[in-house]
Amino acid sequence: MTTPAYTDRYFSPDPAVRDVARILYASIAALPLVCPHGHVDPRVFADPDYSFGTPADLFIIPDHYVVRMLYSQGVPMETLLPIPGEEEPAAEDKDRRHRAIWQTFADHFYLFRGTPTGMWIRDELRDIFGVEEKLTGANAQRIYDRIAEKLARPEFRPRALYARFNIEALCTTDAATDPLVHHRRIRDSGWHGRILPTFRPDGVINLDAPNWRANIEQLAKVSGISIINHQSFLTALEQRRACFKAMGAVATDHAALTPFTVALSEREADAIFQRALRGETMPNDAARFTGHMLMQMARMSVEDGLVMQLHVGALRNHNRAVFERFGPDKGADIPIATEYTRNLQPLLNAFGNHPRFRLILFTLDETTYARELAPLAGHYPAVRLGPPWWFHDSLNGMRRFFDQVMETAGIYNTAGFNDDTRAFCSIPARHDLWRRAACDWLAGLVVRHIVDEEDALEMARALAYDLTKLTYNL
Amino acid sequence: MTTPAYTDRYFSPDPAVRDVARILYASIAALPLVCPHGHVDPRVFADPDYSFGTPADLFIIPDHYVVRMLYSQGVPMETLLPIPGEEEPAAEDKDRRHRAIWQTFADHFYLFRGTPTGMWIRDELRDIFGVEEKLTGANAQRIYDRIAEKLARPEFRPRALYARFNIEALCTTDAATDPLVHHRRIRDSGWHGRILPTFRPDGVINLDAPNWRANIEQLAKVSGISIINHQSFLTALEQRRACFKAMGAVATDHAALTPFTVALSEREADAIFQRALRGETMPNDAARFTGHMLMQMARMSVEDGLVMQLHVGALRNHNRAVFERFGPDKGADIPIATEYTRNLQPLLNAFGNHPRFRLILFTLDETTYARELAPLAGHYPAVRLGPPWWFHDSLNGMRRFFDQVMETAGIYNTAGFNDDTRAFCSIPARHDLWRRAACDWLAGLVVRHIVDEEDALEMARALAYDLTKLTYNL
Amino acid sequence: MTTPAYTDRYFSPDPAVRDVARILYASIAALPLVCPHGHVDPRVFADPDYSFGTPADLFIIPDHYVVRMLYSQGVPMETLLPIPGEEEPAAEDKDRRHRAIWQTFADHFYLFRGTPTGMWIRDELRDIFGVEEKLTGANAQRIYDRIAEKLARPEFRPRALYARFNIEALCTTDAATDPLVHHRRIRDSGWHGRILPTFRPDGVINLDAPNWRANIEQLAKVSGISIINHQSFLTALEQRRACFKAMGAVATDHAALTPFTVALSEREADAIFQRALRGETMPNDAARFTGHMLMQMARMSVEDGLVMQLHVGALRNHNRAVFERFGPDKGADIPIATEYTRNLQPLLNAFGNHPRFRLILFTLDETTYARELAPLAGHYPAVRLGPPWWFHDSLNGMRRFFDQVMETAGIYNTAGFNDDTRAFCSIPARHDLWRRAACDWLAGLVVRHIVDEEDALEMARALAYDLTKLTYNL
Repeated sequence: MTTPAYTDRYFSPDPAVRDVARILYASIAALPLVCPHGHVDPRVFADPDYSFGTPADLFIIPDHYVVRMLYSQGVPMETLLPIPGEEEPAAEDKDRRHRAIWQTFADHFYLFRGTPTGMWIRDELRDIFGVEEKLTGANAQRIYDRIAEKLARPEFRPRALYARFNIEALCTTDAATDPLVHHRRIRDSGWHGRILPTFRPDGVINLDAPNWRANIEQLAKVSGISIINHQSFLTALEQRRACFKAMGAVATDHAALTPFTVALSEREADAIFQRALRGETMPNDAARFTGHMLMQMARMSVEDGLVMQLHVGALRNHNRAVFERFGPDKGADIPIATEYTRNLQPLLNAFGNHPRFRLILFTLDETTYARELAPLAGHYPAVRLGPPWWFHDSLNGMRRFFDQVMETAGIYNTAGFNDDTRAFCSIPARHDLWRRAACDWLAGLVVRHIVDEEDALEMARALAYDLTKLTYNL
Repeated sequence: MTTPAYTDRYFSPDPAVRDVARILYASIAALPLVCPHGHVDPRVFADPDYSFGTPADLFIIPDHYVVRMLYSQGVPMETLLPIPGEEEPAAEDKDRRHRAIWQTFADHFYLFRGTPTGMWIRDELRDIFGVEEKLTGANAQRIYDRIAEKLARPEFRPRALYARFNIEALCTTDAATDPLVHHRRIRDSGWHGRILPTFRPDGVINLDAPNWRANIEQLAKVSGISIINHQSFLTALEQRRACFKAMGAVATDHAALTPFTVALSEREADAIFQRALRGETMPNDAARFTGHMLMQMARMSVEDGLVMQLHVGALRNHNRAVFERFGPDKGADIPIATEYTRNLQPLLNAFGNHPRFRLILFTLDETTYARELAPLAGHYPAVRLGPPWWFHDSLNGMRRFFDQVMETAGIYNTAGFNDDTRAFCSIPARHDLWRRAACDWLAGLVVRHIVDEEDALEMARALAYDLTKLTYNL
Repeated sequence: MTTPAYTDRYFSPDPAVRDVARILYASIAALPLVCPHGHVDPRVFADPDYSFGTPADLFIIPDHYVVRMLYSQGVPMETLLPIPGEEEPAAEDKDRRHRAIWQTFADHFYLFRGTPTGMWIRDELRDIFGVEEKLTGANAQRIYDRIAEKLARPEFRPRALYARFNIEALCTTDAATDPLVHHRRIRDSGWHGRILPTFRPDGVINLDAPNWRANIEQLAKVSGISIINHQSFLTALEQRRACFKAMGAVATDHAALTPFTVALSEREADAIFQRALRGETMPNDAARFTGHMLMQMARMSVEDGLVMQLHVGALRNHNRAVFERFGPDKGADIPIATEYTRNLQPLLNAFGNHPRFRLILFTLDETTYARELAPLAGHYPAVRLGPPWWFHDSLNGMRRFFDQVMETAGIYNTAGFNDDTRAFCSIPARHDLWRRAACDWLAGLVVRHIVDEEDALEMARALAYDLTKLTYNL
């Protein structure tokens, strides 16, 4: 057997490709991690003594990738998650319960064979917790003990891991209504870590967001602006953007079902907003208003320089029963086909040629890579393409992204990598996967004489580090 | 030239991958074939002395893959198929005519270069009929003689081949109105072969099916239930399902243009059904009624445990002239883009969390693999994904399936392989192609350190054998 | 490092594949280039002393692939293109300005890393102009001098290059209203080159074409037929087709937003046409009329034998500001999702079975390769598939085409290669890329025992040469 070494994992088995991939990877492996988009809770850095809790708290309960896979094979949510509405168990009960959750996870760990979750967790267990065995039902409790023992140590506090992971900057994602107290606490603590907020106004922009009315009240409160019409709403958002920027924000982030954009007249926009305030929206109001607000957000980005991120295409909470009992983010968001060419035309015609504007597009519909996104990014000065997202943040997903985007857009119209994760400890494994995939792809170009090794070295650095900093002004 | 051996066919040329693929394949090559979905006529097993007829009867006339390719290059249907309406020719005329059909096929066999049909037929000729030469116009008649001579022997009777092919179970596809006499004859004959019916009610569920009215009458007759309204229609279907189950059926199968599902009120369902009985359906009736009946079928599956298969996305009989002269299944069915996320939401919200329900989805729109199907299968306990279907049942089609489905769904939310063929003699070649493709894909994971060899051996067995038995309760 | 040689560029790094690819490529590399579809201006051959101008005239100004990429990274159009409305600068100013354009291009040449444009230009510089260095900002002016010096020589006249490139035939694309004076001049000159017109009537068929009214007047003038209604319009088109055919045309070409086809009654067609003449079209008129005229064009092709080409799916001039200032073809055409199965059914039901009709389909939506186009081409005698087009005319685009089309359609339902370029000097590089990609793909089939080397040699020749001649009757 001529199987390559673990240190060459994820590279092509072809010796010529692997040799080049190894050289490229060696040149960038030590670069710091830049994390411009993700969902790590800023609270974990606000408290210098924050602990990640049990192995189940760290690996299973918050990870919808893990939960959905176990659920898909008949494991009841009740055996994986805290029962909604139940009170927090006593410490000993919690330990028993979390050990049971871990056991269930380990018994079913074979389900993750060949999946990115399986790869991240294997690499994370090995590289962060020193666990070299394969997790099985038999060794589950022993490995639980080992992780729990490590998690109790000071060097496994989030701030210590931030340093160990060699992170240069990490952006969180924060509601427009968030007063950013944790960010303030981090800043005031004098800690050197660079944790930056990102402005995410979906909860007030999407009229059909759960609790929209309450979110508007919260927005009024936190901004100190009385929101009585469309204009005051815009003013409040501008005020919040300024606050975020003052706290270091470099970007905004927007989720919508589709990338539909439309320029509403002030009159129509206000009419819809007023209807929403009265709780009397009409069928198309929410979609039109979101389309309008995306253009307003672009306009504000031109003015304040915050980079605009757009994540579209997930039909949230597809499984009503799961949503009603366990809430959102339990692995029941399912993508839909997405159209960018026509939907984004109004926004791009208004702002896409502006030198100060930058719009990063993410998709869950890979058919748009070569058909719509790469041609848009390969023409409009404002447009950059975000890395493979969510279901596509995987070895094959990256390969498809490289193969379908780069020939038309070139790498310089892409935005490097972001991990988009709430699982802080998975960050090194995720970046490493991207870096290996990128070097492997570049090595394939080198051996086919598409680029030479000199170019490939620069491209590897760009994909691993430079493009992210450049795109996000970090 | 370092070209690998024929015994390594379909494997990657990379030596590291091939070495592992060989090991994996060796471990599963001798496993029996499980055939949970296909279109072999049960009559071939009902008569112990059934003969497949001439080589043209076996390889060409019933195979729409072959017919369509020849037709696409200008070969008239009339030179390939019995002339519709003409009476059966005398034996000698038939021999002359079938030799001419075979000659035409051989003259054009180069058209199948690089196609799965070309690969299946090559492997079938070699492995079943001992023909090692490449079929050409020059050797056509010699090879015809050789096959004809074999087909005349007792060891080429279907039952003998069933044993030689090492088939463990084979499910046919049978109209809901089929009285299952051939299945009964097989069972009564005491033969050990396991030939099971599958309940396919399209002809009575799709109001726009040709002969719908006659099908309903046949359903009434065979079920002994007078079908006068929606309720008696459901009762008749339940009765037929019970009969199929009593004859060994493990599954139902449903074809529809789209996977649209909808919960109609009893009142609306009955109104549509009554209109259909009167021949007065309105524009949307057929689509709504099929959407409603798919949910009724799911409800019945929860009750009786029959696995539900859904094959959608083919626009049947695209070529009107061919359909009118030669009928359906002549290679003129063309796929359309298909939407699953929203269309299946009503059905999955009603039954997708039920532990007794199993829904196997098939698609002709590969863009849904990563975007919709893998996320659905990777969440809902009821959902499994069928293997690449029809145009995608090919080496590249399988590779795309593995690459686009498995990272999100994992292999354990897939249903193994089925050959879906009416060409009984192609079954070993089709399963062998799947097994080789699966081992080659797994070998690629091993050499990249995504899974280890121990896991890959279990996965190979799962893909070749276990998952099919498990999914179909066989 | 075991990196293969430059002479093996674009081949797989796998030694077994590369060895076969090399053999296949050697067998076809010297075949003449057949160019059945492209946008080279016939004027360059009409004047035996035509010069391509400066390096900027040749490589940058007319190439929307180059312009769009530079623009996407913030390079103003004004620094790349002649300022619209400005008068032609004096020779010295022009030289200064073109050197500046070239410098900008060279400074940004890194943007083309990994793109087909980068590969074509690199190969073109090397193989045609003898420039082996990588173009950079530092060597830009030196390379400019070198190219300019070559371009001044007689052996770099278009007719000389036509011979040097070993071109056998080259079809241009000409408006239906074009009097074909350049073609006539070429023919009258007695030069041996085979430059043929192609009939492209979009400007008179698409009612929403810019200047439609003026185009109709020009059509009346050039055909000598007074166009007062639908019938006289058809007659004028038939007259023009006959003229084109007399000048050697073998094909027509049609661009539309979608492949929608519809059989209008004579009455409806005339009503729409009359409304258009009066400038009073209604919302759906243009789409319906184009759908109708595509069927009329198919009908005429059945009659006169001109091969019909259909290029659909580009939303033209997406960026209004760029269009208004710089006009069309500046890299701002963006593809949209396209549906063929239903849209083409009327046309194919009317003419798709006709032995004299040939329809070549091109797409910008790769999702239709396996789902719609290959099944259509693999059934209808009239349908052939054009090679990967525009954004997909690239190494990966070709690989996806081979992988997604050939298993279902077979290679013999495809139309070989066409370069579709206005950049005459890029023709050898483009054909070479296709030939290498085809041989590499075929080599992959050989080493997997899907086809044998004897078949692969025939297939290589078919893909490089025979299929194009056959499909276009050249």
